[in-house]
This record gives sequence, structure tokens and C-alpha cells, in this order.
Amino acid sequence: MSSDDSTLRAIPAVPLTLEGHAVLHQMFRVRRDAWRALDANARTEMISQARSVLDQIGRFENGESAAFQGLGHKGELTIVHFRRTFDEIGAAQNAIARLKIHDYLEQTTSYLSVIEIGLYEASLEIYRKLADGGLSNGSDEWRAAISSELGSLRAKMASRLFPRIPARRYLCFYPMDKKREGADNWYRMPIADRRRLMQEHGTVGRRYAGEVTQIISGSIGFDDYEWAVDLFADDPLVFKRLVYEMRFDEASAGYARFGPFYFGIRLGADGLEQIFAV
Amino acid sequence: MSSDDSTLRAIPAVPLTLEGHAVLHQMFRVRRDAWRALDANARTEMISQARSVLDQIGRFENGESAAFQGLGHKGELTIVHFRRTFDEIGAAQNAIARLKIHDYLEQTTSYLSVIEIGLYEASLEIYRKLADGGLSNGSDEWRAAISSELGSLRAKMASRLFPRIPARRYLCFYPMDKKREGADNWYRMPIADRRRLMQEHGTVGRRYAGEVTQIISGSIGFDDYEWAVDLFADDPLVFKRLVYEMRFDEASAGYARFGPFYFGIRLGADGLEQIFAV
Amino acid sequence: MSSDDSTLRAIPAVPLTLEGHAVLHQMFRVRRDAWRALDANARTEMISQARSVLDQIGRFENGESAAFQGLGHKGELTIVHFRRTFDEIGAAQNAIARLKIHDYLEQTTSYLSVIEIGLYEASLEIYRKLADGGLSNGSDEWRAAISSELGSLRAKMASRLFPRIPARRYLCFYPMDKKREGADNWYRMPIADRRRLMQEHGTVGRRYAGEVTQIISGSIGFDDYEWAVDLFADDPLVFKRLVYEMRFDEASAGYARFGPFYFGIRLGADGLEQIFAV
Amino acid sequence: MSSDDSTLRAIPAVPLTLEGHAVLHQMFRVRRDAWRALDANARTEMISQARSVLDQIGRFENGESAAFQGLGHKGELTIVHFRRTFDEIGAAQNAIARLKIHDYLEQTTSYLSVIEIGLYEASLEIYRKLADGGLSNGSDEWRAAISSELGSLRAKMASRLFPRIPARRYLCFYPMDKKREGADNWYRMPIADRRRLMQEHGTVGRRYAGEVTQIISGSIGFDDYEWAVDLFADDPLVFKRLVYEMRFDEASAGYARFGPFYFGIRLGADGLEQIFAV
Amino acid sequence: MSSDDSTLRAIPAVPLTLEGHAVLHQMFRVRRDAWRALDANARTEMISQARSVLDQIGRFENGESAAFQGLGHKGELTIVHFRRTFDEIGAAQNAIARLKIHDYLEQTTSYLSVIEIGLYEASLEIYRKLADGGLSNGSDEWRAAISSELGSLRAKMASRLFPRIPARRYLCFYPMDKKREGADNWYRMPIADRRRLMQEHGTVGRRYAGEVTQIISGSIGFDDYEWAVDLFADDPLVFKRLVYEMRFDEASAGYARFGPFYFGIRLGADGLEQIFAV
Repeated sequence: MSSDDSTLRAIPAVPLTLEGHAVLHQMFRVRRDAWRALDANARTEMISQARSVLDQIGRFENGESAAFQGLGHKGELTIVHFRRTFDEIGAAQNAIARLKIHDYLEQTTSYLSVIEIGLYEASLEIYRKLADGGLSNGSDEWRAAISSELGSLRAKMASRLFPRIPARRYLCFYPMDKKREGADNWYRMPIADRRRLMQEHGTVGRRYAGEVTQIISGSIGFDDYEWAVDLFADDPLVFKRLVYEMRFDEASAGYARFGPFYFGIRLGADGLEQIFAV
Repeated sequence: MSSDDSTLRAIPAVPLTLEGHAVLHQMFRVRRDAWRALDANARTEMISQARSVLDQIGRFENGESAAFQGLGHKGELTIVHFRRTFDEIGAAQNAIARLKIHDYLEQTTSYLSVIEIGLYEASLEIYRKLADGGLSNGSDEWRAAISSELGSLRAKMASRLFPRIPARRYLCFYPMDKKREGADNWYRMPIADRRRLMQEHGTVGRRYAGEVTQIISGSIGFDDYEWAVDLFADDPLVFKRLVYEMRFDEASAGYARFGPFYFGIRLGADGLEQIFAV
Repeated sequence: MSSDDSTLRAIPAVPLTLEGHAVLHQMFRVRRDAWRALDANARTEMISQARSVLDQIGRFENGESAAFQGLGHKGELTIVHFRRTFDEIGAAQNAIARLKIHDYLEQTTSYLSVIEIGLYEASLEIYRKLADGGLSNGSDEWRAAISSELGSLRAKMASRLFPRIPARRYLCFYPMDKKREGADNWYRMPIADRRRLMQEHGTVGRRYAGEVTQIISGSIGFDDYEWAVDLFADDPLVFKRLVYEMRFDEASAGYARFGPFYFGIRLGADGLEQIFAV
Repeated sequence: MSSDDSTLRAIPAVPLTLEGHAVLHQMFRVRRDAWRALDANARTEMISQARSVLDQIGRFENGESAAFQGLGHKGELTIVHFRRTFDEIGAAQNAIARLKIHDYLEQTTSYLSVIEIGLYEASLEIYRKLADGGLSNGSDEWRAAISSELGSLRAKMASRLFPRIPARRYLCFYPMDKKREGADNWYRMPIADRRRLMQEHGTVGRRYAGEVTQIISGSIGFDDYEWAVDLFADDPLVFKRLVYEMRFDEASAGYARFGPFYFGIRLGADGLEQIFAV
Repeated sequence: MSSDDSTLRAIPAVPLTLEGHAVLHQMFRVRRDAWRALDANARTEMISQARSVLDQIGRFENGESAAFQGLGHKGELTIVHFRRTFDEIGAAQNAIARLKIHDYLEQTTSYLSVIEIGLYEASLEIYRKLADGGLSNGSDEWRAAISSELGSLRAKMASRLFPRIPARRYLCFYPMDKKREGADNWYRMPIADRRRLMQEHGTVGRRYAGEVTQIISGSIGFDDYEWAVDLFADDPLVFKRLVYEMRFDEASAGYARFGPFYFGIRLGADGLEQIFAV
């Protein structure tokens, strides 16, 4: 316990969060031998259908989809969907599966999450205010107050919760956990200490603000890691610099467990043609 | 040893449990290229057969089955079976395998377990009562008394042991273990301490009682993890909130090891049609 | 070092073991789409051939084979072979591979081991007797004496070393290791301490003697884990109770590392028909 | 903290790096049954097309590609691409995928990275110079100064950043991480200590300078490990000697986590013919 | 540090090694459904070709190849190649791939290594002699002296470095690492302590000398583990006894990390016929 604030012991360990778009990442390999066996007209038609559907679902009012060229065996086509609801994610998945070109794809992996803003700063302020106001943690009054605070934060942060897919050329995507290994157990650390580490971590991120658009999504309860990170940049080397620098933050050095990394190049107008050319 | 109760040292380390429905989760991917190659009539007929069998086995007196749309590469169709016996689970598995549409499915994974109510509270009371009554742990009298206590608890809790599949829209499913790693070894902890941690853990769960229906099943001896958790809710974000909040409980923070997470959307009347539409 | 017996330091760390039947577990999935494409006569004939071969190899004087319905994606058909020699296991594998129905199976996994009786009790007695008799560990006299002791034990325990496959309805199978992780290193523990832990462990097992038939096989040098456990019972819930209770033994709590678990239902007269019905 | 230099506490933990060629390793198995089913003319033509494209893309001004025979199940064909940009890597991937012979390949794995020169020595000098000059870490002046220093280093090291693929006969390739496990956490170590360990590590490498050409690439943000190592030599036993000797360096002994290893033999003029002969 | 020899601190940590045959293990499953679909003549011819090629490459002056029946899903055919060079291993791989029967095999895994004699004893003697002679570690004189010492040892041990494949009936194969986990870090241990542990380890091995032929190969730089072990015996139970006894050596108990284990039965004259019979 590095905190000597007695209030702290009475407040929740879990930080408040805000949730936005549901997100699905789909990674596909092209089954190129079957694809090449098709006649050229069939191929052209299927690409054309795929492009038109991608364009269409890429412009939904309630979210959008974007396609990337993946590099390597994890799959040369990555599709990212942002949607208002998980039901709409299900519908987007169905729309992709119904594409004729889908018969020539093999889904290698995917990731399901929901855009999340973690509120370590605000949580401690709110928790302390409520505790100082005499509300007891978990009571109906407490919960109503929290709900109301979250409501106003949600309204203020709507554009960050329900963003467009950033219009940058390169994508870096990876899921991650906070460790619970021996002495390095994030979930046993006092919330004030976690807040401090997340602040430091955020400081590094902000240094890259102009170069990288970062979208954090939460996947506890939805997929195999706890969080997922999407980085969008116009210079791919920035991904390495940012993630390397962050790795020395105590939040990462001591507590991050990283999943696989995926790299993508945003498909331009003729991107599908390039990937599917034989 | 955090307990100074000398009786404790004489009582069993293993908590009593009650068992109910046998449970099988089946996750399937659609082999869509072969499916699309069928003519439309054949597809309609197979969907129709599948729906009729699912409806039928979904209403068994001895349990039921329910189908969900899965999101992502783990499979777009999840079927959950609750049955009175493992033999009936075997029969349900056969029934699904005999569906014509099954030729167009690929089973990606599955999970076998049995609904379990863990009785940490009752165990300690019963163990102490028997020990105070002079019975010795493991003797025939001890075992008969335990058996009789379990009998009455089983009768009282029958509806929780043999429930319907909750009629909520979203499913979150994951298996988990209790850790035995270095200093964090659940199975070396005194039963009274485990009871306390499970109480705290239960407190969080109960806070979500109105929003989430939670069904715990045990899989020691049946599948690769020790327990499985099914959460059913009408708001999918509640899964994240509940599981995140619980992760800070000492029972989870210190001792839980989580397996993969699966998310599903309950299939409505035309759910199969939606998934299998081409 | 918890032992103050100076003899102990001179005696071997490895306990004596007796070996019996070689054992192969084979897990298969049915390739049901190809199977269903066959005409009904061909299917009937293949099932009939399979049943007749299984019956035949199930009655070998030198061992036997038994088939189980597996539940879940690990495969709906499990075949267990007990044989006098590894060569006969090779022949049994060939016999299964030559079945016509084998073309419609996909082997998902397997496990190779040999029935083993661990002799912690006897080992210490024998080792001490030899040491007290002035024989030195590893000398020719020592080895001859050990060999002769094992010879008589082997004769006495022949029926446990070369058993029938127990005629109970349910099978629970899993491989396991003893841990060598940090402070929890089974192989660094003095043999007398290991003996004590194995005694405690055996005590739990014996409590279930009437309900479960347990067969331990050793797989060091043969397969990926060190041991394999087959439990046979008429009530499948007993598997969970037994394995759960054992997990609190120090031998399991502190030192066991478990592999995957497999559950099977013994095939009755029409078992193959049930599994392969379309 | 093994450093008593107070300046050290003010300087960044992350060492400076220079980046050169983007690199993609592609590992393929030959689908030999389908390949053999082709008629001999078709095979000759496809090999001929493949050779001509490999020759062509092997000579790009902006990088090159080279093919190797892999040994074992990881795939008998390995192609390594060096390119100025990730977009060109994407184009190289497309070029390989468009080869007719690609229909007879199965990509088993791949690795994406960028040639990196780690500047532990220079970093500390530069950081200290800037700190002594009164610049504060992360300020605009600091960043401009760093950028200018990197610019001159990049110019000086251009040939190491954008090298040819070394013309040696054997390839050893493996990815690796620096550990963050318990007390062995590379990212929590002061930069001066890491510098010292990297110096020692480099000393071993330099001893093999005449026998091995080593190319380090960074993959943080691009692929699943943090770095990748390509060793090129004319005597394959040198790989074992070098990597074994390095494993005793504190940098490797204490902090390296190795991924899979790949071994290749550079394809000569008739190399493709040899691999694809039936 | 358990050594008080000040010379020790000046001598290398890495023990000297001698290298002999390059070794490739190939594990194959039979694609039996496609195989059975062939007509009997075609099958006979392919077996005959395979046998003749195996016989031929089994008798190379520069090494040989041998085939084994594998048990279980890892594959029913194992082929082991010993060759003078890695290029010849590449040629042997090509020869197997060109067999017509290869179209009916699926390679499940493989392992690449080179026969190695570890010289812990000799290393310390040589290192000390050189150090006492005033040579400094790593100098040209030092390296020349080492090279000359290795030269004479290599000549003396030629038959162990370039052996025949032992003509025993059973094969046990497994790869392994030395651990670098927390306090159990082989590579941080002083060389004199490692030597002592390897001596103890060797003592156990020598006790089985008449019953088991053991061939150690090194795979650092070639494959995913650091070493591989081939045991050949006429009694398969000896594998279990030897490996079990060794597991209690401090070298294994504390520092070994084992990979998968493979078991094989040497194919006799009609071995291929037995495996491929339908």
C-alpha cells in the first residue's frame, strides 16, 4: 500500500469506464488457388460486389468499416468494423460472409471489443467526492450518483466514444492484458497507484498525439485479452517508436502482457484489385 | 494459516458442491463455400430441418438447447445444451451431428461441464456441526450425514440446479481455473479463507443480480479448465462491467486463470436464416 | 530436507515402479460430410466391419480394446487399447487404420503410456534393507537384489499390471506432470517426503475405491506428460468429486500439472450405429 | 539501481534506434500432391515464371529478395524480402502471391520487421550532452536535437541500414523478446546497465564478424516478438557456436526469450528445380 | 558462486563442443483415405519405390536414413536422417519428397539438429591449461590453441560424431532446453558447477550403457529447442526407467525443460507394407 489516504480504503478498486462503438477486427487469408481457378469475369464481378458492399457498409451512420492489406501469413485482408451495437456487428459479419468473394477467403482470426475510455482520473475524484458526501460505496445513492456523473462524461466524450475510423494509411493492432503474476499483479495494486502509472503511460502517448491516432477498446467479457489497441499513423515507423517507448513505462514494463501484433496498409481505391490480382 | 480455530484443522479442505444439469457448449463455423454451392431449395430445406430439430430439442422436459450467433472466427453458431444426464448430452450431440446442415459446419471448439452450486458457507457449518458432534472426517457416519445434508440442500435448490436456459439476448461464456502458481495457490489456502474470498466475490455478483443471470458449472474431470461461467444479459456491456469489477476481488485478482471468452447473440425466429443467408 | 535419517541420503531418489500393459488412447472425429455422402449399404457394411474388428481385438488374450463416445470437439469416438507389448499396440493401430470406416475418421489426438504401479512404500523399505545389508547403491549386488524384489512384486501384482479394461460406463482420461517450478519442484524433494505425499494422495483415492476404478500409466519417454490417469465409473459425477477432492492434497495442490481432460461413454451394442447414424 | 549517476535519472529509458529496410520473411510448404498432378510442361513453365520473377524482384534498386531451401516441416521454401518501405513489402507479397506456382504453396508462417540499429552507446552520450546543455527531456529543443543527431547517424550508417541480402550460403532466422518476468525484467533495468549488457553481448558478436553477417531487425508494433535476428554464414555450425556462446551473456542468459528458429540453404541457379522436382 | 577458484572467473562460460552428423527427424501421418482410393497395383508400386529409395539412402557412405513406425496421432511413419552436411540433409529431404508415396503423407512435424559431444570435462582442463600458460581468453593464440585441441579430440571421437543409426528396435526421441527461469537459470551458473551436474547426469546414463544407445544432438540455431535426445533400445521400458531416473538428477530436476516425446518401432523388411496395408 503506497497510499496513506484513509478514504482510499473505502472506495472501489475498479475505475469507471465509458463505452462507445462495438468493434470487430476480421483477418482473412485469400484462398488463391481456388480464386485463380475462376474465370476472369467472375473474379471481376466478385471484386466489384465486394468493393460496393465495403463502400456501403463503410459509410453507415451508425459506424463504419474499413479494409486493410495485411502483411504476412496472418492474412492479407483485414476488415475493421465500428458499430453502435453488437447486433450491428453481427449484421456486418453476416454482410461480409454473404459476399461472393468470401468463398475465397479463410478467416484466420478476429477480435471483438468495445471502444473504452478509462477514467482513472475522474474515478478517484468522483469516488472521493461521494465518499466525502457520506455516500456509501455500492448503495443506491452511490450508484445513482455514479450513473449521473458517467452520463455527463459520456455526453462530453461522445466523439471519442463513437469516432470515425481514422483516415490514416497504416494500422497497428494488438490485444493486451494487465499481468497478475507473482509480485507483478495489476489487480492487487491500490487504485491511486494504478492511476499514477496510467498517467505516466498517457504522457508518452500524448507526445505522439500528432503522429498517431490511438483507439483503446475493452474486451473483458468479449474476447481473450482484456484490452485491444488500434494505432493509426501515416508513418509506420512511429508504431515501433511509440510502443517501444511505452514499454519502459512502469505500467507496461511491469504489468503489460501483449498478444499478437497485426500490421495493415489501408486499401486505396484499387486496393482490392491489387490484393486479388492473379 | 489465517485461522486460529482448531476445529478447522480437522475438517476437510474440499467444499461441498451440488450438481445439476450436464452442459455442452458447441461452437461451429459455417463452411460457407460448400453451403453456397448448394441450390436454394436444398438450403431452405436444411435450415428448416435444423430449426425444427433445434425447436424440438430446445423443449425437452429434461433440459433444453439454445442457439446463438457467435461473433468472430471462433464460429458464427454456438449451441448450448442443458440435460439431466451426460447420456442425454451424448444424444443431443448425435442429434446435432445428424442434421443435414451439419455437413456445412465445422466444430471449432466445445466445452463440457455440469451445473454446480459451490457450498462454501454451508460446508463449514456442516463440517463444524459434525466435528462438534464427535464424528470423524471420512468415517461412514460422517459420510452418511454429509449425504443427508446434501440431499436436503439439493431438494431446496432444484430450480437453480436444473434451470431453463435464461431467456436473455446476450451470452458471455468462459472457462476458468483457480491458480496454483508460487505463492498464489488456491488449493493450499485454508477453507475458511477461501470461503471469505468467495463471499466477497459473490457480493459483487449479487450487485448485478437484476441485470445478469449467472450459471456456474464445474468441469473438473470433464474438460480442460476447472469451472465454466455462463452470463446471460440483455445489455452486453454489463458483461464487461461485471467481469472487470470482479477481477479486482482477491479471489480473481490473486487466483483466477481465465480461458478464452465467447460472446453470443441469441438467435430469434429467423436467426438461422440470417446466419445462413448467402 | 525434512528427513533426519542419514541412510536416506545414501539411497536413490527414484522410486521403483512395475510396468504392465502398454496403452494407447486414440481420439477421433467423424468426417460426417464424407460419411453421409456414402450410400446406406456402404455405411452399414463399414459399421459392421468396424464392430466385428472391435469385438475381435476387444477380446485378445494379450490385452483388449474398448470404444467410447467422446463428448465435444475432441472427437466423438475414443478407442482405448491395452496390450502386452508396444509391438502389439502398433498392430492394433494398424488394425484400426485398416478399417474402411477409418477413411471417415480424423484422429484429433492420442496418448501412449504403460500401466505403472509406483512403489514408494516398498522402495524405501527395500532401499533401506539393502543399505543396512551393506550393499552400495548402484552396485551389481544392489541391482540384482532390486531386480529380484521387483520380480516377486511383479508376480504378486500381475492382475493389477495386466488388467481388463474396467467394465464401467464412463471414462475420464487425463495426462499429468509433477511440477518443477520455482519452490514447487517435485523432483528436488526427498523421497521420504514424496512417499508421504503419495500416501495421503492414495488415501483419498481409496475412499472412492468402490465407485471408481483407477488405472495409472506412466508415459515418461513415451508421450508428452509424465503420467496418465484413467478413471472408470458408473456415475460420472464421481469423477468430479474425486479429482476435486484430490486437488487439495499437497501432492496435487503443490505439484500436479494437468493436461487436457477427456470424457467418454462406453459404447453399447449399438453404440457405433448411434454415433454414425445420419 | 546500479548507477549512482544523478544525471541518469533525468534521461530517457528508451535507447535511440535507426531504422532501415522493411523486412518480410515468408515460409512456405510445397503442396506436392497437387503439384505432381500437373503435367510436366505446366510445372516447367511455373518454375520458370517463379525464377524469373524472383530474379527480377531480387534486383530491385530499393531492396531485394532471396530464396532459401528450408529444412523440415516449417516449410521447404523461405523467401526473404528487404524493401525501402512497407508498401513495397506489400507489393512484393502481392508479386509472390500472383506467381502461378503459389497455388502449390502453403504459407506456414511469416515475420514482419524493419532493420534496426540500436544505439545504446550513442544514446547515453547524446542524452547526457543534452541534459548537460540544460535541455529538458521531451521538450521541443530536446526532440529537435535528437532528430538532428539521428539524422547524421542515419547518413553515416546508411549502408548498414539498407544492406544487400548477404551473399552467404546459410541462413539462421529467429525472433526474440527481452523478458519481463519477476526479477528478470529488462524494461525495469537502468539504461546504463542495459548498455553495459548490450556491449558485452556485442563483443561476442564481433568475435564472429568474419564468419557471420548479422542483421537485427525490430518488430515491436509489427509482429509478435520484439526483435528478429538474421544470421548469414558459409559454415552452418557457426550459427550454433555463436548463439550458444551468446546464451551465456547476461543479456541472453537473464533476459532473452527466444521464438522459433528457422534454417535455410540459399537457392542456387537450379534451386527451385531441385525443390520442385518430382 | 560455488567456486573459489580465481582462474575460473577468467575462463569462458561456454563449454567446448564437437559436432558430427547433421540430423533430420521427419514425422508423417498417412493420408489413408486418398491412399485406399488408389488401385492395388499403384499402391504396391509406390511402396516398392519407397522401400528401394529408403534402402538406398539408408546406406549412404556419408550417413544413413532409417524408418520407424510411430505410435499415435503424431504420425505413424518417422524417418531419421544422419548426413555429413546440411546440404545432404536438404538432398535427403528432397529425395523423400519425390517419392510417389509422399503424396499420401502429411508431415506433422520435424526436428533439425547436429550430433554434438559436449566437453565440460575437457573444456575446463583446456581452459585452465591455457590460462595457466598465460594465454588470454579470446586472443588469437587462445583460439588457435582451442582449435588445435578440438582437432585432436574430433579425430579421437570420430566414430561417436559420425555414427551409424543404432540397430536397435525402439526409438525414443525428444528435444529439450536448459531452463532460464527465476533462480533456476542454467546459463547463469558457473561452468564448474554445470560440469559437476553434467557429470552426475552422465553417471546415470552410463549405468544404462549396455541397454540404451544415446545420441545427443545440438539444435541451438537450427530448431526450437537447444538439444535433442535419441535413445535406441531393444526393451522399450528402458526408456521410461532411464528418463525417470535422470529426472531426479539436479541437471534435469532443476534445469531441464522437455519438449514433446516421440516413440518409434524400427521398420523391418515388411514394415512399410504393414503400415500401408489397407
